[in-house]
Amino acid sequence: MEESLKAAGKVDLPWMAEPLGYVLESGGKRIRPALTLLAGKFYHYNPEQLIPMATAMELFHTATLVHDDAVDKSSVRRGRATVSSLWGEGIAVLLGDYLFANSAHLVCSTGNLRVMRLFAQMLMNISSGQLRQLMSAYDWRQGREDYYQQISSKTASLLSLSTESGAILSEAPEEGVEALRTYGHELGMAFQIVDDILDFIGEEEELGKPVGSDLMQGTLTLPAIVLMEQHADDALLREVFEKRGDRAGVQRVIEMVRNSSIVQECYKIAADFCAQACHALEGLPEKDCRRSLLDLADYVIERRK
Amino acid sequence: MEESLKAAGKVDLPWMAEPLGYVLESGGKRIRPALTLLAGKFYHYNPEQLIPMATAMELFHTATLVHDDAVDKSSVRRGRATVSSLWGEGIAVLLGDYLFANSAHLVCSTGNLRVMRLFAQMLMNISSGQLRQLMSAYDWRQGREDYYQQISSKTASLLSLSTESGAILSEAPEEGVEALRTYGHELGMAFQIVDDILDFIGEEEELGKPVGSDLMQGTLTLPAIVLMEQHADDALLREVFEKRGDRAGVQRVIEMVRNSSIVQECYKIAADFCAQACHALEGLPEKDCRRSLLDLADYVIERRK
Repeated sequence: MEESLKAAGKVDLPWMAEPLGYVLESGGKRIRPALTLLAGKFYHYNPEQLIPMATAMELFHTATLVHDDAVDKSSVRRGRATVSSLWGEGIAVLLGDYLFANSAHLVCSTGNLRVMRLFAQMLMNISSGQLRQLMSAYDWRQGREDYYQQISSKTASLLSLSTESGAILSEAPEEGVEALRTYGHELGMAFQIVDDILDFIGEEEELGKPVGSDLMQGTLTLPAIVLMEQHADDALLREVFEKRGDRAGVQRVIEMVRNSSIVQECYKIAADFCAQACHALEGLPEKDCRRSLLDLADYVIERRK
Repeated sequence: MEESLKAAGKVDLPWMAEPLGYVLESGGKRIRPALTLLAGKFYHYNPEQLIPMATAMELFHTATLVHDDAVDKSSVRRGRATVSSLWGEGIAVLLGDYLFANSAHLVCSTGNLRVMRLFAQMLMNISSGQLRQLMSAYDWRQGREDYYQQISSKTASLLSLSTESGAILSEAPEEGVEALRTYGHELGMAFQIVDDILDFIGEEEELGKPVGSDLMQGTLTLPAIVLMEQHADDALLREVFEKRGDRAGVQRVIEMVRNSSIVQECYKIAADFCAQACHALEGLPEKDCRRSLLDLADYVIERRK
């Protein structure tokens, strides 16, 4: 897998070797390609198609991060300077486009029409979800349903394609495809909720970015939404959500969340999604890969970064 | 065609209706979709596949313009404010991504594996070409070969896919596919050269953007390269190319080009590419669409905006 990513970085295009190598060595968790490869092990494991697909999932994920950082003007990600802060936003936009292109190219190289169509559909979901998030920034009138829809597009759609494509490319029967798709989707929901909790309770060194980044960018996540539900009449709280760059206000909101039962409640919701994910695997063959996917669900809940 | 583009703009996503509608009504020349539809008329005209493909070509082109304007921080295009200047760079990045996604989705809807693969390959060409252009900005050591390679990736690759896909989707024989691909590529080269000439000799009202925009952004195009060839020892000229934001220097270079035979020489080169384009059509069936493609080649050379 790492080799395949390295191959994607070794292009005969000297002008992009540096930023490309930089983003591909960024030490991500490689969850998406792991999902594709594990999902592909239940039936006819087929590395010739699965490895390009898994690589595409990671490259695509990287592309979205590079564009997100350009959009949010973030300077740090995973403890390292972002592409946009090192080479400028222009390079970040075009490098992201190149990574999108490269992932589409790899998906096409599987020659599987169904997977290619799902990839295109996922592109639409994810980009419209990202746009929606940006357009609704600093709007406190967002509820849980908006949030779930949001994270379903922006995160779960890619994780569910990661598992679904693994299933399809290994010729899983339709129930198997559906089970692995559901697992990926529910895991994706849990993953994003935990990410959003960590933005409130994590430590900067572990997160690799400042605590409270979401709120600073006007992104209302589950902990903030639950807090709003509990303080529906608190005009001061609304003001913090609406105001741009209010570092002190954001700090107050973080303290409010930390000193409440909200974190626990949100973890409970994430755990329920994980349980749904694991439940979906029940009908699948009892193989090592099933165990690995169950372990991955535990990891998603317990991770600290 | 316009209806199909309007349909692409009418999405059930209220948060992006406004910027999406705005870019799709921008009154472009619609050359790329016209190429796909005309190329599709030589053999088995098949609107169910050709119209989505043609629409994809225009959406993709629009996506690249939206990203380009964000990268270049341009405020005006085709006489109207750019998306990035109206809604911010973040929206421009994500709206561009959505348009890319939408075009990929339409290409997939043709169900034609060959066309999908060519589309993915074109994505790689175009995005690496754009990156290269940005990375080599303000570098005066670029020659004609660099320039041809550059415009082949950034412009001709999309025009050649526009015609090639039309040929493939209408079940043209291989010689027909090759002929139409060549026509699109050569026309694309001519088109970009004329575009680059107009940036020196056009009128701001006709261009819909300031004269000399390329030089101001450090993009060395054919007229500037020919000027450099003629004044290889002119250190002052190099300085203008290397210096950012030197409006007076750029104005001097524009005058030097206008008062020379360079414009004529560049038109001659564009005309040669057009002649190659028309030559490629010789073996194709004598139908109205062939006449239209020949006329389009004339238009490309004669256009003023």
